[in-house]
Amino acid sequence: MNVWGRPMRTIWLEEDGATVGIIDQTQLPHQLVTAKLATLADAAHAIKAMLVRGAPLIGATAAYGVALAMRADQSDAGLETACTTLLATRPTAVNLRWAIGEMRRLLAPLPPAERVAQAYARAAEICDEDVAINQGIAAAGLPLIEAAWTKKRQQGRVEILTHCNAGWLAAVDWGTALAPIYLAHDRGIPLHVWVDETRPRNQGASLTAWELGQHGVAHTVIVDNAGGHLMQHGRVDLCIVGTDRTTAAGDVANKIGTYLKALAARDNHVPFYVGLPSPTIDWSIADGVKEIPIEERDPSEVTEIAGLTASGAIVKVRLTPQDSAAANFAFDVTPARLVTGLITERGVCPASRDGLLGLFPEMKARLAGE
Amino acid sequence: MNVWGRPMRTIWLEEDGATVGIIDQTQLPHQLVTAKLATLADAAHAIKAMLVRGAPLIGATAAYGVALAMRADQSDAGLETACTTLLATRPTAVNLRWAIGEMRRLLAPLPPAERVAQAYARAAEICDEDVAINQGIAAAGLPLIEAAWTKKRQQGRVEILTHCNAGWLAAVDWGTALAPIYLAHDRGIPLHVWVDETRPRNQGASLTAWELGQHGVAHTVIVDNAGGHLMQHGRVDLCIVGTDRTTAAGDVANKIGTYLKALAARDNHVPFYVGLPSPTIDWSIADGVKEIPIEERDPSEVTEIAGLTASGAIVKVRLTPQDSAAANFAFDVTPARLVTGLITERGVCPASRDGLLGLFPEMKARLAGE
Repeated sequence: MNVWGRPMRTIWLEEDGATVGIIDQTQLPHQLVTAKLATLADAAHAIKAMLVRGAPLIGATAAYGVALAMRADQSDAGLETACTTLLATRPTAVNLRWAIGEMRRLLAPLPPAERVAQAYARAAEICDEDVAINQGIAAAGLPLIEAAWTKKRQQGRVEILTHCNAGWLAAVDWGTALAPIYLAHDRGIPLHVWVDETRPRNQGASLTAWELGQHGVAHTVIVDNAGGHLMQHGRVDLCIVGTDRTTAAGDVANKIGTYLKALAARDNHVPFYVGLPSPTIDWSIADGVKEIPIEERDPSEVTEIAGLTASGAIVKVRLTPQDSAAANFAFDVTPARLVTGLITERGVCPASRDGLLGLFPEMKARLAGE
Repeated sequence: MNVWGRPMRTIWLEEDGATVGIIDQTQLPHQLVTAKLATLADAAHAIKAMLVRGAPLIGATAAYGVALAMRADQSDAGLETACTTLLATRPTAVNLRWAIGEMRRLLAPLPPAERVAQAYARAAEICDEDVAINQGIAAAGLPLIEAAWTKKRQQGRVEILTHCNAGWLAAVDWGTALAPIYLAHDRGIPLHVWVDETRPRNQGASLTAWELGQHGVAHTVIVDNAGGHLMQHGRVDLCIVGTDRTTAAGDVANKIGTYLKALAARDNHVPFYVGLPSPTIDWSIADGVKEIPIEERDPSEVTEIAGLTASGAIVKVRLTPQDSAAANFAFDVTPARLVTGLITERGVCPASRDGLLGLFPEMKARLAGE
């Protein structure tokens, strides 16, 4: 998507054909800083210190991290060190594990001399695959926005609410939930996005607002508390959010607070859609509320927040009394009954076992066997 | 309620019998600073700059503001100036208007020489009346917490979720929503309060957390996004919130985000109560969603936040991109159908016209006449 009017991805191979460029997302939205990764250590640091975040982007960075490692040491031991080092950066990220496994499977059987070129080629491919999946989600979701526009008789603009950041900054390009929005915008449908701030990490207020603004998409930041009021007053035509994990029954785990917006959507007859790449479907579980463990993160993410001072410094401030405890649940689960449809790269389906199997018939045998 | 182990109110007459003490709430939760009001200008500034906030406390401060004004100038012109000056501080506050009207009605017919003493006496009475009403709410709400404790077979502790600050800091003492919680705590019922941060002004994270902590009530600050997840997992026994305005049909206008918690409570069969002093019932309207105008406040309350730096300074930081718009809706309306009961100083009633008329039969004639 565009940044300062020019297309950009979150990760790219530099012109030297060796080092890897990324956006240092810890500096957003206050400044656009890019960083060059030249070594395995650089890549591991970028993931661990969250210069890059979002499951697909973490996977892509890890893949390039293996390539950077191969440049320094193509031996079996070098490959092993690279995989172990990168795996340890964010222990729970599924895409990280997948991308590293993919690289290991490809490179291990090869003669060391061939590993560098193959690693770079596969890392580039992993990036392009992510973009292709997201373009699929964009194409599948576009008719939903077109339908909302038609329903409004092309008056005003389509009002879309989103939560957290499921945009191109979380991926290589396009994003998941935001992909149909970018496509609709590029096709000339007038639209406006209500951006949930998304406490405690404020991915909406910082990342979603920044990327929509850079691409020229009209948007307004609101606190997470505001969405219900907007829906009550007919000011939201549809909601689109992302997800970290969708169960085989269509339950959706996403950033904490998603469930509250889904409840408000149902109460006000607002369609509630979830954009997801099919690899995030967890076919092994059905009941998300019961079966998905919810990560509890450091309470300091609730009690402290970073922002830009008037003098241009980024500082962290404390919000709560020194002696008050805080709890920090990272995700919640929105039951399938509250989800109007799942937008995947293969199309849109009802949030149900039958809906998902309609798009992914190859999973029937597996689910039947359980 | 207690502060550093000693009972305190939010406003008091100093020992000199003339100046008025308040807590400077803009410094909470980071430091407890008190201020002395000696003049009309001091009182007006305290209200305008929000050193004091919360409808009942604003009313009490205005009453004392008239008394302070009388000390300097007991003439009719002095009384008029006092009323005009104080009325202009927060144009929409109902209690402000009421308290000033009350003082004017009392003082205007009196000889100027008697006005000072009478003004101080009535201001003190207004404070005590607020405390009495809140004690009534405490007594009415206590059985609800006792019932939750019984239902849990006295295992663990009663888990209560609240939103915003409807505690003693918003009143003279006790508060409204928090009054039954303080009483249950003082009676020895083990309880724990989930404190919604309450973006954008963070009254929960700063004020509610501070006052509960000072009084020794166990509590945990959570982001506004978290309550639905907690209710899904059986970790909330009941919700109690305050309200700025309740309609004759039982619809409840309260801080933005209250509606989302009420939806989650209904979805998870968690009782949702609203504590209110009866003067905040607006008998002239029924449909809150349609008839209550929602104040839009300055977007900077969303885009910037103040907190304590590591070096102990309170600074304001920006959270959003420079070019992103923000919207700031102050309240939302929770329809009566989502409210389990209204806790008033006369008792608990269903959130409905019949429920309210059961407690306030004197309003029957008025409603019938409409």
